[in-house]
Amino acid sequence: MASNSSTTPVLEELDRAECMRLLGERGIGRVAFDDGEGPTVIPVNYAVDGDAVVFRTSASGRLRRSLLTSVAGGEVRAAFEVDRFDESSREGWSVLLRGGAHPLSDEEREAAAHVEPWPGGDREAWFRLSAREVSGRRLHRP
Amino acid sequence: MASNSSTTPVLEELDRAECMRLLGERGIGRVAFDDGEGPTVIPVNYAVDGDAVVFRTSASGRLRRSLLTSVAGGEVRAAFEVDRFDESSREGWSVLLRGGAHPLSDEEREAAAHVEPWPGGDREAWFRLSAREVSGRRLHRP
Repeated sequence: MASNSSTTPVLEELDRAECMRLLGERGIGRVAFDDGEGPTVIPVNYAVDGDAVVFRTSASGRLRRSLLTSVAGGEVRAAFEVDRFDESSREGWSVLLRGGAHPLSDEEREAAAHVEPWPGGDREAWFRLSAREVSGRRLHRP
Repeated sequence: MASNSSTTPVLEELDRAECMRLLGERGIGRVAFDDGEGPTVIPVNYAVDGDAVVFRTSASGRLRRSLLTSVAGGEVRAAFEVDRFDESSREGWSVLLRGGAHPLSDEEREAAAHVEPWPGGDREAWFRLSAREVSGRRLHRP
């Protein structure tokens, strides 16, 4: 796409199909949730699984502790954000999924999209965030 | 820093000074807050201002509406995240600030670090998030 660096970037709302396309199959996203002391954000490796994202984290980590203790097997409200911005062109996009996150059972895990976490060590806590709301914005020069 | 691509990346906790160094002076970060329907995440341009970050958003936007309606001039619990990851090396870092966000008065705005938002249009809602907690992690190959 040709862009004119002399114009000011504008924000454009993206439809759900474009948001899901931008998410791709996998990557790094950020999950936001309330751990009892307010909102917090953790970067995680993810894979798209239908209308949901699946991600893994440490079984001893904050995310797992918070989700497990706050929901006791149910689900907790969470948001999942992915973006890509280019510092030189000042263009880019962001996609936001909002919905409920819940830990995956062993059976669900076997059926889910595979997530390969970058960090070593134990990443055996799997979660799925089902997107009840998908939104996104593109920042580009008209 | 030399890295061995055959080893698995490990996560290392960063101290506050290193976190503030990584934030730099300005850039793009993500603010997470509860807008009344659960956690949400919005990318914003920011500038570091002492132990706080200052960011701007649309005066008609969700962030401003939520913060203003939920706090009525006070502050709301929020998190602010910045990260940088390299897909090929699978190394990177993330920094998280947690604390209270409040809208800046005209006087505070004049004294605050300048934030230049990338998008055009009205970005005249300024906020400051004071970091009560600063944490960060580096993902690197030992």
